[in-house]
Amino acid sequence: MAVKTVMNAAGRKVPLAINGQPAIPFRGVGKHRPSGVKYSPPIPTCADFPSDGNKVVGSLEDALRKCGLKSGMTISTHHHLRDGDLISNRIFEIASGMGVKDLVWFPSASFPCNDPVIRYLSDGTINRIEGSMNGPLGRFVSEGGMKGTAVLRSHGGRVQAIQDGEVKIDIAVLAAPSADAFGNARGTGGSSSCGVIGYGKPDSMYATKVIVVTDNLVDFPCCPMEIEGNYVDCVVVVDKIGVPEKIVSGTTEITKSPDRILIAELTASFLEKTGILQDGVTMQAGAGGTSLAIAVFVHEILKRNGWKSKFGFGGSTKYMVKMLEEGQMGCILDAQAFDLDAVRSVETNPCHIPYPVFNAYNYHSKGNLTSMMDIMILGATEVDLGFNGNVVTHSDGYLLHGIGGWQNCLHARNVILPLPLFRDRIPVIVDEVTTLCGPGELIDVIITERSIAINPLRKDLVRRVKGSGLPIVTIRELKEEAERICGRPEKPEFDDRIVAAIKWVDGTVIDVVRKLKIQKG
Amino acid sequence: MAVKTVMNAAGRKVPLAINGQPAIPFRGVGKHRPSGVKYSPPIPTCADFPSDGNKVVGSLEDALRKCGLKSGMTISTHHHLRDGDLISNRIFEIASGMGVKDLVWFPSASFPCNDPVIRYLSDGTINRIEGSMNGPLGRFVSEGGMKGTAVLRSHGGRVQAIQDGEVKIDIAVLAAPSADAFGNARGTGGSSSCGVIGYGKPDSMYATKVIVVTDNLVDFPCCPMEIEGNYVDCVVVVDKIGVPEKIVSGTTEITKSPDRILIAELTASFLEKTGILQDGVTMQAGAGGTSLAIAVFVHEILKRNGWKSKFGFGGSTKYMVKMLEEGQMGCILDAQAFDLDAVRSVETNPCHIPYPVFNAYNYHSKGNLTSMMDIMILGATEVDLGFNGNVVTHSDGYLLHGIGGWQNCLHARNVILPLPLFRDRIPVIVDEVTTLCGPGELIDVIITERSIAINPLRKDLVRRVKGSGLPIVTIRELKEEAERICGRPEKPEFDDRIVAAIKWVDGTVIDVVRKLKIQKG
Repeated sequence: MAVKTVMNAAGRKVPLAINGQPAIPFRGVGKHRPSGVKYSPPIPTCADFPSDGNKVVGSLEDALRKCGLKSGMTISTHHHLRDGDLISNRIFEIASGMGVKDLVWFPSASFPCNDPVIRYLSDGTINRIEGSMNGPLGRFVSEGGMKGTAVLRSHGGRVQAIQDGEVKIDIAVLAAPSADAFGNARGTGGSSSCGVIGYGKPDSMYATKVIVVTDNLVDFPCCPMEIEGNYVDCVVVVDKIGVPEKIVSGTTEITKSPDRILIAELTASFLEKTGILQDGVTMQAGAGGTSLAIAVFVHEILKRNGWKSKFGFGGSTKYMVKMLEEGQMGCILDAQAFDLDAVRSVETNPCHIPYPVFNAYNYHSKGNLTSMMDIMILGATEVDLGFNGNVVTHSDGYLLHGIGGWQNCLHARNVILPLPLFRDRIPVIVDEVTTLCGPGELIDVIITERSIAINPLRKDLVRRVKGSGLPIVTIRELKEEAERICGRPEKPEFDDRIVAAIKWVDGTVIDVVRKLKIQKG
Repeated sequence: MAVKTVMNAAGRKVPLAINGQPAIPFRGVGKHRPSGVKYSPPIPTCADFPSDGNKVVGSLEDALRKCGLKSGMTISTHHHLRDGDLISNRIFEIASGMGVKDLVWFPSASFPCNDPVIRYLSDGTINRIEGSMNGPLGRFVSEGGMKGTAVLRSHGGRVQAIQDGEVKIDIAVLAAPSADAFGNARGTGGSSSCGVIGYGKPDSMYATKVIVVTDNLVDFPCCPMEIEGNYVDCVVVVDKIGVPEKIVSGTTEITKSPDRILIAELTASFLEKTGILQDGVTMQAGAGGTSLAIAVFVHEILKRNGWKSKFGFGGSTKYMVKMLEEGQMGCILDAQAFDLDAVRSVETNPCHIPYPVFNAYNYHSKGNLTSMMDIMILGATEVDLGFNGNVVTHSDGYLLHGIGGWQNCLHARNVILPLPLFRDRIPVIVDEVTTLCGPGELIDVIITERSIAINPLRKDLVRRVKGSGLPIVTIRELKEEAERICGRPEKPEFDDRIVAAIKWVDGTVIDVVRKLKIQKG
């Protein structure tokens, strides 16, 4: 079934309605003005809650029943347990057993461990996922397996959607490494520590009903309260909320690929030679192998010059923690901890600070942390000649990643994408991105293992690299170089059906993903 | 002008409308059920805010103009600068100069330093105060000087009113001992440190416009963020937000009155002999001279028995800090710091934790801290034969105090009121309280310098004191004893005009204060 589409400001054909709700086409960066008031959930009363503060119920099923689980509801979860999450799938297993249908699953991200929900998408328990989908789940969506249309949002866009009432959460199920019987909860302690659980906070504040699930019930008060018990309806105690070794990597590992090391070195050199990297710099790196290598090179430059980064914004890793502990970083503001060193640091170091996603990322607020930052190191599956970026699909058309904080981070002063020229003999620089996730005007620099392309809009940077000896080329030259090596890959073929919508940070629709025409045989 | 009144569930005649808005009569403890959804302010967008996060404007007047100050608006402030507040009066001085009229001032409390606002009440700049009024301000209201009707709420009731939209804040002006240019703010640092500023947090979240005023602009990020910059419109930097020596007492002083010491000893003895005071106890004390003496006696009992209080709930004082530091208290959960030792403690001790008022006190949430607590030591101006309490007027009918957290604290397990039998030869135990602030069913024990009266509803306590040797009497006997000494004071005479409404924790009207008939003479 084809829906009515219009051309948005980025030249992409997008629908005027998604899953039966009106949708606003992307209008340009900073161009859409929201109207109306924030969403607000029903007013509760203490008269309905035990005066001794004990909200523990027998099981997750009891809690879901108590919260009135029924067909058509929206169920939210956070992703801080990452690939070790044992709770999300269980919700839908219970729902399926109860005969509940047409749920919307609204996770802050999904991981390979969530592939079993394909069963509940297939049996009608879940109508759709509004959140990231990768691996088999993304493949399932791209091939048209999901009944409803997926909606992909950035971490900040998810908060915006909750706050503005675009998504009304009926029941939030929030896994917590530690919680008290009142529902105060945090991301540390116990055997499933994940550092912080801040992506669950908007859910706790805006959902009608809130269930905290923990495997580590602690004495009241569970501090610091990332989730506040006054928003919580029930607490469930289970044996295990997560698989510890899959929640965080034991260690995050720097790339060993010589090409990637080259990209990292070139990136660090670019940052130093342009003067972007300086004393007092604010930065974010990421947890990919190349990003980690960049963090190490940047750390060396800071040390060599006697400089100190004012703060780093996490996703935190051991390399950022090292900068903090060795004195080259003032503090870490953290939205999620990627490895065990980061978890330990956030547990013990008062300068490693859990950071509210409302403050960092929500575009419908009175300012964001990200727009104040100097350096943002990000990835992409594709970048095109207009510097537009794609992070959700591959060039073969398959939906394979979530947006994460990527769109939100694009608002920083210097957005740098260190990318290999090609992956599996598929060029990364293309004529036009398969799916538009971020407008080119916000992407400043592409750094590959061979050369660097600066967005011509950044005249200041173009000027600053003059005489630097850095291998500067145009983005077209980058593309041509990759094509000389790999050739031009075939374009995927799509049919009309929209299987996923990509939201911009302001809630407008920047692009869609269509169902793949599957070549039989 | 007389308004239509009805008898509420406590037998008090209350109006069905206050300041032109409908009002719900008190229905009994836990009987009123709220309906509808929480209030929500307009959706902002980052597009309207500087991307470098710098929201500093030139002056408070600039900020008020930028926020669209105009007649009829509601302006909120917090009271953490206590009697040293230099900001609140200034707002109305500016408004008066701009010719703005009929404002509603919505402070979380007022202090003697705010008496100058009488000028702006008189010249029409302010229509009414919704908040506490004491000293000359209370006298002004009691004598009918204020144009609108005052509305008095507990600290928790104020949050409930904000959350439920009973009070819509147009502009919140939040003084902050430290803040960064983005508006992140905290209660410590600089020369006006007051420890915590948590009573301003609901204002920041629900007001349409938010101004942070600081005399200590710090580097981003100002942590811990008690106020989050994503809610803040402007930041104003001034020379001084407060008079340090009036913000907190240098030290809080234990009573020297032999009678009050006797009350304190008897209270501690009662707590120990009834077994209410035990290992793991949770408690709140207060900052009055008698309360401080009780804290010292309680501390001794804990030490003598090798017990430890699980947590103390502040308003914190040096005596509570002493318990924490010497190991007789697990942590302090703090809503405000009363003296310099408390401020130092909250700045430096990770077990001294700023505590969210939403979690502690808001009756329209999913539970409150106070209902879980064992011991609550509170005061009162009058208690009557039905154990009903008054904290806002004196027996002469004058409005002289705010409610503070008093009503919220009544929900604890054991509510103890240590009171002198009389003050200035006016008995404290009366036939019927002048103004009803707390229903007798929630007040458990009255302890005077001579004897103790237990609420007969607390059969368990009546049983537990048998054979304890404690001087137990009925409340009627307490009253008669006081009257034997002081005689029965004359009742004040009121006319029909309602000058103030007293809200219960659920937003219903529990009583009113009427205009005094002034004896000319």
